[in-house]
Amino acid sequence: MTSTATLERPLDAEALITDMGHRARAAAAVLAQTPTATKAAALKAAARALRAAEADILTANAGDVARGEANGLSSAMIDRLKLDPKRLEGVAAGLESVAGLPDPVGQVIDETTRPNGLLLQRVRVPLGVVGIIYESRPNVTADAGALSMMAGNACILRGGSEAIDTSRAIHACLTAGLREAGLPEDAIQLVPITDRAAVGAMLRAQGLIDIIVPRGGKSLVARVQEEARVPVLAHLDGLCHSYVDKAADPAKAQALVVNAKMRRTGICGATETLLIDRAFADPKPILSALIDAGCELRGTEEVRALDARIHPVAANDWDTEYLDAILSVALVDGVDDAMAHIAAHGSHHTDAIITEDQPTADHFLTGVDSAIVMHNASTQFADGGEFGLGAEIGISTGRMHARGPVALEGLTTYKWLVRGTGQTRP
Amino acid sequence: MTSTATLERPLDAEALITDMGHRARAAAAVLAQTPTATKAAALKAAARALRAAEADILTANAGDVARGEANGLSSAMIDRLKLDPKRLEGVAAGLESVAGLPDPVGQVIDETTRPNGLLLQRVRVPLGVVGIIYESRPNVTADAGALSMMAGNACILRGGSEAIDTSRAIHACLTAGLREAGLPEDAIQLVPITDRAAVGAMLRAQGLIDIIVPRGGKSLVARVQEEARVPVLAHLDGLCHSYVDKAADPAKAQALVVNAKMRRTGICGATETLLIDRAFADPKPILSALIDAGCELRGTEEVRALDARIHPVAANDWDTEYLDAILSVALVDGVDDAMAHIAAHGSHHTDAIITEDQPTADHFLTGVDSAIVMHNASTQFADGGEFGLGAEIGISTGRMHARGPVALEGLTTYKWLVRGTGQTRP
Repeated sequence: MTSTATLERPLDAEALITDMGHRARAAAAVLAQTPTATKAAALKAAARALRAAEADILTANAGDVARGEANGLSSAMIDRLKLDPKRLEGVAAGLESVAGLPDPVGQVIDETTRPNGLLLQRVRVPLGVVGIIYESRPNVTADAGALSMMAGNACILRGGSEAIDTSRAIHACLTAGLREAGLPEDAIQLVPITDRAAVGAMLRAQGLIDIIVPRGGKSLVARVQEEARVPVLAHLDGLCHSYVDKAADPAKAQALVVNAKMRRTGICGATETLLIDRAFADPKPILSALIDAGCELRGTEEVRALDARIHPVAANDWDTEYLDAILSVALVDGVDDAMAHIAAHGSHHTDAIITEDQPTADHFLTGVDSAIVMHNASTQFADGGEFGLGAEIGISTGRMHARGPVALEGLTTYKWLVRGTGQTRP
Repeated sequence: MTSTATLERPLDAEALITDMGHRARAAAAVLAQTPTATKAAALKAAARALRAAEADILTANAGDVARGEANGLSSAMIDRLKLDPKRLEGVAAGLESVAGLPDPVGQVIDETTRPNGLLLQRVRVPLGVVGIIYESRPNVTADAGALSMMAGNACILRGGSEAIDTSRAIHACLTAGLREAGLPEDAIQLVPITDRAAVGAMLRAQGLIDIIVPRGGKSLVARVQEEARVPVLAHLDGLCHSYVDKAADPAKAQALVVNAKMRRTGICGATETLLIDRAFADPKPILSALIDAGCELRGTEEVRALDARIHPVAANDWDTEYLDAILSVALVDGVDDAMAHIAAHGSHHTDAIITEDQPTADHFLTGVDSAIVMHNASTQFADGGEFGLGAEIGISTGRMHARGPVALEGLTTYKWLVRGTGQTRP
């Protein structure tokens, strides 16, 4: 996956990342004490710089796109890579939006006074240094850099070689924003080489990088999880289910299922498996609506008996995140059977029940062990923006630290402040 | 480190841990839905079983101690290993205390209604399966098992070979408690072999074990951090500092420093380095009081000039957690110099400032990047019990998930519940 944009000089990736890490640590110490307004000013200045540099960025992007086409990138990858004035304005507006988010740093999570008079407070503080490893979406350079910085962290961005010239051009605007606000440029660093050894060095940079956020396909996330010595905030599969209970409203169920599958098929919150209660009145209109909307259905024999256009389902379909207009369909015996299917095949991302029966809904909400569990809502709402977080650096499917959509708060930790008046411990 | 207690049959550690992990996952699914009262009843029943089994446990413990002495364990290790009726009663009382703690599971952390009417709630849920790897303290079997279970988790306990017979006897009481409360015995499992390969298998048990908590010395924690593929809640060094500012009250400073160092020298919250402002009126009485209390002081030349009994300090002393009656002492130029020393040599555990000047204290509290930062209090307060958490499974010096003393809340995560009325995403 090297490209003509790869620097050719024999730079030692380990030494490079160590140096960047030390500089990031120093910048993080400054950022941790930086007032909200200064961080916001840096992002607003970066947005202005982005707009002013539109021509340069689009030229750089055209070069990346041309190289990608010459290298035979898929049309989906080219689409992710490609910027136009509208998309670039979206990136700039995104920076301004992050600048307007409430700053979690300094928030008192809770406080308590002990019988001996000690006042204990848990206060939010930045995580420190965030390492972000991503692929061909150049907007991640701006989004991830902005979120990390607004939460008081320094970050080290390692973008994919496919988008490296675009990433450099966008990164220059972020740096200009930092400079204009009087903040250290080392607060947002872009790894200057696209050598894969740089990824390995980041994954091993314990003590210099506090958390790694991988943004990309399964092979990237798998490599990160296998090699990382630094904690990882990982987004794995989004194998989401929608379950239509016997007590579902048929019209609502049809609208929800079609939206959950077909609104956008390539996002992680898209439903991949439809479970229908055998006691539900009539599944046929739902299946028909899906097929009419362009979805390929794969079902068990009893599902296929409902509509001749349904293809047979294979055993591994239940464990496949299609990210496409394909849906596996099974009939189940009520909510517990649905929950057992989800426990066996789900990816702990987002799962939904459609029912008008509140106790059944509560049973599902409590019992399904996923980052997001929904009642009478489309799984496509699994998104930081839709959750009111203003943005997201990813959707965590792990259980540690942060779960579900992660924005500013997920990029912080806390410390305990203990305020005494001379107390010694007996 | 094998002992006569090691099972000799050729059990495949990987297969064993995989089987235990699957059984733990199944138990965790039950525990996640178990009401607080049932979990508490299991712990109270376990406490009764412990008291009833006192003779058997002490006999098992005497065997462990005799074997340890024959194997040449240090007197400190023998002391950690040894139980007597009073210590055993403490273990039983500890179970009852955990049974009385507020249950974090089901707590609504926050909720918000979106403009489209979706109600979002973040609700605390158990982490899942906790793996605890510890050494010779047999009470960890009870403490860690109880905390994990009360937070709704299943756990897999891997105790050291030195204490294995004691751990088995205590574990039998926990199992009896689970049985009496109608809970699955697999909720608290003890690894039946002391083969070190079992540790390796636990560290690699991704998907079966959700978090590893190492409880033990540096070599154990280092191995865990090096090998673990499962997230780790680690307690590293407690290289704690007390800083005496120029505006410190001399009598308060003396009492705090002597307590912070000498109350118990072997705990992680003990101060290991004393920093004194060069502008502080008279450090001599503090140094003298420490020496009179039996502490060996190691100081720079200017410190040694204050008292002839002070030994020279070596460069690596500043980075040494003595866990003994030894203290490094340096003079510094005010609070910023002290903070720079702590940033260079601290372990992000607990650091304290002693001053009557509030702005200086706030500057220190904000600027020191440690899990616990104190003002006018003894660093020996760094303890879950002293923080009102009722217990602790450890003190986390990492930045992810939980920081500082970790009790029930740190053994939970959260999920997002989304309650809708048929909303589709535009």
